[in-house]
Amino acid sequence: MEALNSHNVAVMFFSLAVLLGVARALGELAQRLRQPSVLGELLAGVILGPTILGRIAPTLNETLFPLHGVNAIALDSIATLAIGLFLLVAGMEVDLSTAWKQGKTGGKIGLSSIAFPFVVAILAAFIFPEALGRQPDSDPLVFALFFAIAISISALPIIAKTLIDMGLYRSDLGMVVISAAILNDVIGWVIFAVILGFLSGTGGAGMEIVMTIALTLIFIGGMLTFGRYLIHKMLPFVQAYTRWPAGELSFAMILGLLGAAFTEWIGIHAILGAFIVGVAIGDSSHLRERSRVIIGDFVSFIFAPVFFASIGLKVDFFAHFDAGLVLVVLLMACVCKLVGGTLGARWGGMSRQESIAVGFAMLSVGAMGIIVGMIALNAGIIDERLFVALIVMAMVTSMISGPSMRLVLHKEKKWKLRDVLSSKLFIRSLHANTRRQVIHEMAAAVGETGDLDTTVLELAVRAREEIMSTGIGNGVALPHARIAGLKEVWVVVGISSHGIDFDAPDGKPANLIFLILTPEDDPGAQLDIAAEITRRFRDQDTVDAALRTEHFTDFLALMRAGVQ
Amino acid sequence: MEALNSHNVAVMFFSLAVLLGVARALGELAQRLRQPSVLGELLAGVILGPTILGRIAPTLNETLFPLHGVNAIALDSIATLAIGLFLLVAGMEVDLSTAWKQGKTGGKIGLSSIAFPFVVAILAAFIFPEALGRQPDSDPLVFALFFAIAISISALPIIAKTLIDMGLYRSDLGMVVISAAILNDVIGWVIFAVILGFLSGTGGAGMEIVMTIALTLIFIGGMLTFGRYLIHKMLPFVQAYTRWPAGELSFAMILGLLGAAFTEWIGIHAILGAFIVGVAIGDSSHLRERSRVIIGDFVSFIFAPVFFASIGLKVDFFAHFDAGLVLVVLLMACVCKLVGGTLGARWGGMSRQESIAVGFAMLSVGAMGIIVGMIALNAGIIDERLFVALIVMAMVTSMISGPSMRLVLHKEKKWKLRDVLSSKLFIRSLHANTRRQVIHEMAAAVGETGDLDTTVLELAVRAREEIMSTGIGNGVALPHARIAGLKEVWVVVGISSHGIDFDAPDGKPANLIFLILTPEDDPGAQLDIAAEITRRFRDQDTVDAALRTEHFTDFLALMRAGVQ
Repeated sequence: MEALNSHNVAVMFFSLAVLLGVARALGELAQRLRQPSVLGELLAGVILGPTILGRIAPTLNETLFPLHGVNAIALDSIATLAIGLFLLVAGMEVDLSTAWKQGKTGGKIGLSSIAFPFVVAILAAFIFPEALGRQPDSDPLVFALFFAIAISISALPIIAKTLIDMGLYRSDLGMVVISAAILNDVIGWVIFAVILGFLSGTGGAGMEIVMTIALTLIFIGGMLTFGRYLIHKMLPFVQAYTRWPAGELSFAMILGLLGAAFTEWIGIHAILGAFIVGVAIGDSSHLRERSRVIIGDFVSFIFAPVFFASIGLKVDFFAHFDAGLVLVVLLMACVCKLVGGTLGARWGGMSRQESIAVGFAMLSVGAMGIIVGMIALNAGIIDERLFVALIVMAMVTSMISGPSMRLVLHKEKKWKLRDVLSSKLFIRSLHANTRRQVIHEMAAAVGETGDLDTTVLELAVRAREEIMSTGIGNGVALPHARIAGLKEVWVVVGISSHGIDFDAPDGKPANLIFLILTPEDDPGAQLDIAAEITRRFRDQDTVDAALRTEHFTDFLALMRAGVQ
Repeated sequence: MEALNSHNVAVMFFSLAVLLGVARALGELAQRLRQPSVLGELLAGVILGPTILGRIAPTLNETLFPLHGVNAIALDSIATLAIGLFLLVAGMEVDLSTAWKQGKTGGKIGLSSIAFPFVVAILAAFIFPEALGRQPDSDPLVFALFFAIAISISALPIIAKTLIDMGLYRSDLGMVVISAAILNDVIGWVIFAVILGFLSGTGGAGMEIVMTIALTLIFIGGMLTFGRYLIHKMLPFVQAYTRWPAGELSFAMILGLLGAAFTEWIGIHAILGAFIVGVAIGDSSHLRERSRVIIGDFVSFIFAPVFFASIGLKVDFFAHFDAGLVLVVLLMACVCKLVGGTLGARWGGMSRQESIAVGFAMLSVGAMGIIVGMIALNAGIIDERLFVALIVMAMVTSMISGPSMRLVLHKEKKWKLRDVLSSKLFIRSLHANTRRQVIHEMAAAVGETGDLDTTVLELAVRAREEIMSTGIGNGVALPHARIAGLKEVWVVVGISSHGIDFDAPDGKPANLIFLILTPEDDPGAQLDIAAEITRRFRDQDTVDAALRTEHFTDFLALMRAGVQ
């Protein structure tokens, strides 16, 4: 075997560490700014690639992320494996049964959200191919189809995340949107596969184009029916006769790799096979939760950041940034997708306001559009200018989707405890011995930090406490009040070693006390936070763990893990 | 970026699928035969490599696993990443605090088990270098050191697995052996690192050898003290201020990759850095169980099989099999390691019998010896003949370690429920309505399957039942008897939809009934199986899940997962 030499190995490990490190750091930052993490991961590649690092330290850039030679192949191999596994996981997250249940409305939105942008984009690409960035020697039809699919596909993971953040995932609206997005995803990839069949010219492995397309459709149809059934029937045998969880994990991985190899071999891209196999596996109720978590987490949090960062290494985003083209592509995508989604929802009988919200929900192009763009660039169908425009469009649509939806539905993001906790408002050892003293001590912390009148806060909480005491049992109490004129949400966490009587139903004194102060005009804040605390501390183990924390950091770490 | 072309991508995914598939299948087979799974994984490479597939289908072998070109580099990159991550996980499983607790005795065994074989092997390698397979142009000292370390290192994971299988892991003997193996591992890798320093000649990155060795020792010392402390302090911040579990997972991975890159850069092998970083991370009590499971399972069950199988792809095991050399190396390793371990245990004040058992426990060279051999071969220090002999030695010592220990301690392998379950003895719907009828119905199943006298079995169980009823609550009952002259262990599983009164402490009728028949002269069998059933079905959810199973396969799958 042609072995990597010592220098290659050192560079490979170091470049992976840098790529993963910067991608994860910027991914975290993006999430802090309430943006999808893929945005930050992509930016990492732009920073480490020719766009920025290549300008300020070309030698370093060339050593770490060379474009030719052994290390280029090494990184490309790992990125290729990463994208295959990412699509396997994306497929596993597609829940076909959900899509069926929402039936008609979801179907109409799914169809309309892909058909409308597709038709508009294909016309535009036929009429202005050069302006849009077609490579001179690429086929006009293939180019038009590619451009259309890059604009009409939707990013299921980002849509799902937005709905979860808004507490809408399990609502009727949420389920309709998810089923539409699933349909959009599956139709989008099937069309994409057919286009890839055209693209390969003579087809894969020397076969005819027609043969490639026929095999693709047979593969997709077969996997989603017979293959899905077979996997569902085989899983209990795998679980019964192999080592747990090694057998189930490798079963899923082997099928994913085989699917990827097959679709690549017949002349379409490996990711399609991995995606379809993922759908077939993920749909089985026999697949255990632990396997989903192990594959899902490892791939989403290790492989995916490496892959998305590696995209930015390929292109100089400054040199190929064409503001006019970016604007055209972005506007076209926004208008077409918004109109397509909204019309579909109206067609399905939804109200006007909800229909517009659905349109915004379906707007997000995200990771899927990036992948389509990357494949088109590698295949020499589009030029770097359009590639950059597509990436910007994919990211911007994902960024505006959530906030616009919130605006249309007048629905605030759910308040989360971890967003309002602060080290200044964490009192490790309360001095107070009575309920009244505790309220004073905790209200004073808010008064001091927020420069507010402690007495006002204290009286409001005591007035509320007199109506009904706030001990919820398990040694937890939630004194609270809505305060007129308050601008922010304040939560103080206090731990009392001896326990304070808060008249709990189980009679236990409270050792863990949360003081919740919210603006009078935002009733949702208090409800969200009180509900989260009740849910989290229903379990005595969590209460005990909280009481054992020594510093604010430990407490915050505890609130990050486990139930949300 | 130099991209893989479509053919390369298809070959890469397919060869990974084949490698993983055959490795996992043979790994399962090895475990079925009570052997370490690494044995089967290695054999997969031998079958798919030049040894077998290369002989019967050279074109296929060359297409799937080429020795030169893009796909060779692709596979080597992934295998290199895999071994780095495998050592990271191996390090994470090292529990330094355990090693400290067992203090003196473990320390003496650890030292002696590495020192004795090391000295003997180094003398042998100096006196007969050519006979042992030194490459003519390699340094005699480096060769001798390499040979000595390959023989004296022990495989912690295999030793731990053997002890768990025998139910000795938590015993005093088990803890002493584990702490000795940890010490052996850490000392072994440090010596190995120093040897690699010598090997690199001018040192890595053009530095002096002395510098390389100094940096190695500083790195190891620093990581195991200050680095370990720093990681322990940083983990709560990572948990508190990043997304869970993405932050913690990528934190561990980034550190592992950086450690690997650093040690490779200074001129020793990447795996050492990954291993030491793994020890430092794994030692922190702040690292959450879920992160350990995700990284551990994915790496152990996906990356590790691929890596071990890839080793067999490098060498023709038939062409380079030198029976004489294999015998010499094997005998030397067995005698030296057995003597070294036993003497260490005697020195530590253990009894003669226990000392010999410890000697056998420390015998296993396993994966660690294979890795050392592979590095030496790649570096041109040893020839293929010695490589093959080392691999055989590593595997054979691992195979005989467990059985010999059992023999010395007169300790049988623990009985496990899943080993005695059979589809013929699974009665999905019991017809019987009374306790007496149930015992008859279930005993008859054994009588028929094993060609035994049902009446004898039935009377023995009823006699036992009269002394004390066997309902254990939660709707589970365990009628049982030890039968004179019985040769095998029989367990019948019966499900009764209406429930049978077995006089349980909670008064519930039994819906899930296990009939346990064991030979009179093997009291351990009944205890092991009854204890396992009690442990598993303490939890009402498990009972409910068992009652919902439709086929034997579902029931067996349930017994595979969860607590052991």
